[in-house]
Amino acid sequence: MKHLTVKTLLGFSLFACTAAYAQQETIDTAAFRKIRNAELTSSQIPQIAHYLTDVSGPRLTNSPGYKRAATWAVETMKKWGLANAKMEPWGEFGKQWEVQDFSISMRAPYVQSVRAYPGPWSANTKGLQQGQVILLTPANAMDTAYLASHSADFKDKFVLVTGGAASSAERFEPSATRLADTALANLKDAYMIDKPTIQMYQGYFKIFAKIDELLKSAGALAYITTGRNNHNGTVVVQAFGDYKKIVAETVPKVTMSAEDGQKIKRLILSGHKVELALNISGNLTTDNPKGYNVVAEIPGTDAKLKPQLVMLGGHLDSWQAATGATDNAAGCIVMMEAVRLLDSLGLKPKRTIRIALWSGEEQGLLGSFNYVKNHFMDGTTFALKPEQAKVSAYFNLDNGTGKIRGIYAQNNQAVKPIFTEWFKPFADLGAQTVTLSNTGSTDHLSFDWAGIPGFQFVQDPIDYETRTHHSNLDDYDHLIIDDLKQAAIIVASFVYQTATRPDMLPRKPLVKEKFVFDGF
Amino acid sequence: MKHLTVKTLLGFSLFACTAAYAQQETIDTAAFRKIRNAELTSSQIPQIAHYLTDVSGPRLTNSPGYKRAATWAVETMKKWGLANAKMEPWGEFGKQWEVQDFSISMRAPYVQSVRAYPGPWSANTKGLQQGQVILLTPANAMDTAYLASHSADFKDKFVLVTGGAASSAERFEPSATRLADTALANLKDAYMIDKPTIQMYQGYFKIFAKIDELLKSAGALAYITTGRNNHNGTVVVQAFGDYKKIVAETVPKVTMSAEDGQKIKRLILSGHKVELALNISGNLTTDNPKGYNVVAEIPGTDAKLKPQLVMLGGHLDSWQAATGATDNAAGCIVMMEAVRLLDSLGLKPKRTIRIALWSGEEQGLLGSFNYVKNHFMDGTTFALKPEQAKVSAYFNLDNGTGKIRGIYAQNNQAVKPIFTEWFKPFADLGAQTVTLSNTGSTDHLSFDWAGIPGFQFVQDPIDYETRTHHSNLDDYDHLIIDDLKQAAIIVASFVYQTATRPDMLPRKPLVKEKFVFDGF
Repeated sequence: MKHLTVKTLLGFSLFACTAAYAQQETIDTAAFRKIRNAELTSSQIPQIAHYLTDVSGPRLTNSPGYKRAATWAVETMKKWGLANAKMEPWGEFGKQWEVQDFSISMRAPYVQSVRAYPGPWSANTKGLQQGQVILLTPANAMDTAYLASHSADFKDKFVLVTGGAASSAERFEPSATRLADTALANLKDAYMIDKPTIQMYQGYFKIFAKIDELLKSAGALAYITTGRNNHNGTVVVQAFGDYKKIVAETVPKVTMSAEDGQKIKRLILSGHKVELALNISGNLTTDNPKGYNVVAEIPGTDAKLKPQLVMLGGHLDSWQAATGATDNAAGCIVMMEAVRLLDSLGLKPKRTIRIALWSGEEQGLLGSFNYVKNHFMDGTTFALKPEQAKVSAYFNLDNGTGKIRGIYAQNNQAVKPIFTEWFKPFADLGAQTVTLSNTGSTDHLSFDWAGIPGFQFVQDPIDYETRTHHSNLDDYDHLIIDDLKQAAIIVASFVYQTATRPDMLPRKPLVKEKFVFDGF
Repeated sequence: MKHLTVKTLLGFSLFACTAAYAQQETIDTAAFRKIRNAELTSSQIPQIAHYLTDVSGPRLTNSPGYKRAATWAVETMKKWGLANAKMEPWGEFGKQWEVQDFSISMRAPYVQSVRAYPGPWSANTKGLQQGQVILLTPANAMDTAYLASHSADFKDKFVLVTGGAASSAERFEPSATRLADTALANLKDAYMIDKPTIQMYQGYFKIFAKIDELLKSAGALAYITTGRNNHNGTVVVQAFGDYKKIVAETVPKVTMSAEDGQKIKRLILSGHKVELALNISGNLTTDNPKGYNVVAEIPGTDAKLKPQLVMLGGHLDSWQAATGATDNAAGCIVMMEAVRLLDSLGLKPKRTIRIALWSGEEQGLLGSFNYVKNHFMDGTTFALKPEQAKVSAYFNLDNGTGKIRGIYAQNNQAVKPIFTEWFKPFADLGAQTVTLSNTGSTDHLSFDWAGIPGFQFVQDPIDYETRTHHSNLDDYDHLIIDDLKQAAIIVASFVYQTATRPDMLPRKPLVKEKFVFDGF
């Protein structure tokens, strides 16, 4: 997920401490070497990836696919010998949904396949429905007064909203890239979003809900949209708010490739009658709205430091047009592999290592934020819970399949020289950049909110933004296994170092601020 | 289509003529300017493209979609005022087929959409069929003895053949490219294929037919393959031989994306039972096996030269997973636009200009080759027909949506300096390369076979080989309209120049050689 936090970006002057930390930092290079050798000779990443993606299927929060993946992760980490492996409820999420049957095709002016997917948590059609398509301009689609006054037009129609055609320019660029040295040297804040933008989104969501209500009551057969990047075989399929228990059943929803949408638009504009046939049959229930994260631990081996924690994680939930391989099985694969390595190598971390695989991330970091509220800081009173003081750091991975090139220090100046030292053994793996810049839109922000050092690594973008992010192409074959191995080596090493160094990692001052966002 | 001719590549020493031709060549630059201005100010290319792709639908030879396109082209050229516009039968093609209904999804271990398309001319399933998938290695799939001895395994099963996973390397390259100057300066023979390769293919086709027969008699639910380039949202869907009337009904056939195929393969190899549900309902008939080309003329205005011909064309038939926009609506769009320009501008071509839009090209240049046999040279006796002597040249376009960068002179050394002169006004449009190299696998070869100068232009590749060629992405939005306009300007100018210059274009000596190939 993207663009989420409202956390104010703060600057501190902790430079006084920097040199001291840098001088004190001692790296357990023998452990680092063991980790690297083990990963390069006996990686379990392909197997973990297969089970989290192919075997589990799409992992929409609270769906059967999510539960398959979570159950497998708990059982697997138990088998590996981790302690306290379990699914931990974090509060109310909302609906459970999975597709039971789906088909769509064009029926007139001729029969042809259409690249399209049901909207997550979509209402069902009444069996296979055939009908005519009518067009809405994007502007009219957002104009609830227009929709209300044209409701008669929508009855028994498929309502299609699509903008302009995709430019051919992007095809002349590679879909996958790696970060050049100049890009690494100039990393800016990424995926951060300010309050006015959030408020703008919240305004949109209200309109979306109203559109839904209007089209449903008008008797539309389905609401069909074509989204950003939906071209060249890629269809980005997501939803806003439809998971919420309080949201009434939606109109049936479909996301279609831009090419199909544009074709239908051109046909209608040239006077042709276009018909589609659609069947959406999903299993939508609200009987168990609780959300669950997956957690497990490697207990610390130092009596005094054992109550202290090093956390690592990524979100296990995904969207559902594919199997969420790069968003974010990738992060979970790497984090599970990291704890497997640390556990299997018989290294002796002093502090307890706790892995967490979150749910509800795609709806607004819900799993991690509620976990943090449950464990570390009250969301209303900002009262700190005892465990808050015991977490040295949280490491997150959620920017696709790309290998690690550095880390976002989130403006924690004191930690910069420490991480710079830690990266030194990994220069040959392409990872050495420590930027003070912030990155947002994923689960380390929940920790940052509660004053706990939370970090997301800098990753090569590969084709995350162009192809796989939330799309129908986010499948196992879009993972780059060698990149995930590199990431597992670095994460395991960083986590081990955090778990064994004399002190906890330095913190930024805690700024108590309410999260104003209530979920996508 | 690709890789077709067995025409021996010959070299001649006609250099003696070269200087003379170059000196004599006079270009009607005023006409060229008129053509260019008209195309840049009042192009009809978007409309022609819309009707040949979106409105007609897939144009598999002899299918209703082909007939819609052919009928529209005939009617449109009549409206424009062209003479003798008609569908002209060329001989027996084979089956007529179009999809009436198609759906496929994975049903176990969970329900999910699958990117897949029915094989062209596939047999129907018996309604919606659900069943288990079994794997065949590519080697076993080609081993008819293996298949015969394992027939019990295939009963009521979906038989999936898939090779290794796609490499991620191609994602780091642009899918679309243009020819660099160095590439233009070093053009080699392209798409040419020798007799041993054709014989190898013919051996394969026999095995394919045998596989079909074995799987069908074994009671397989369908034969599912994943082809070359079938990744990153692209699915290449074609067939070999199944159009032939003499080929018995096939087993139901499906082409699936590599990602889906690989997923199913991994699931089966890790011990999971995978089930699919498939419905193929097509309308397959053999009652009118005749193939038809589309032809139309602009009569010459010079009494003496009017019986002479300049021909231009491209193939109108396509594969059927999309609407064949770049293969080869693009060529037909450009050729139709070129004759529209020439006709509407009131230019006075001395010779008659004849456009031909071929069918059966994808099955082995069938439409153009039979046209040439019907009009110009007997295929068995090599007896020349009178019209053979009257065709100055045939110009073809069939390498995708890319603009024209030059022309393949097909080793016709005498024509090289002529074309070099003609290109001079188009240097600013990026077109000026005349190579003696040969290009194959499209309809100019039929003319070359009969001793008539036949030329295919050099085109920018764009994403023809990587994305659109025979694939589900070959739709209108993969056309680059500006490139097609440029091509129409150059083709119209070349055709006009050929129709007005004093002499017919120089010919290579005719080598009478039997076509050994009887269709893909």
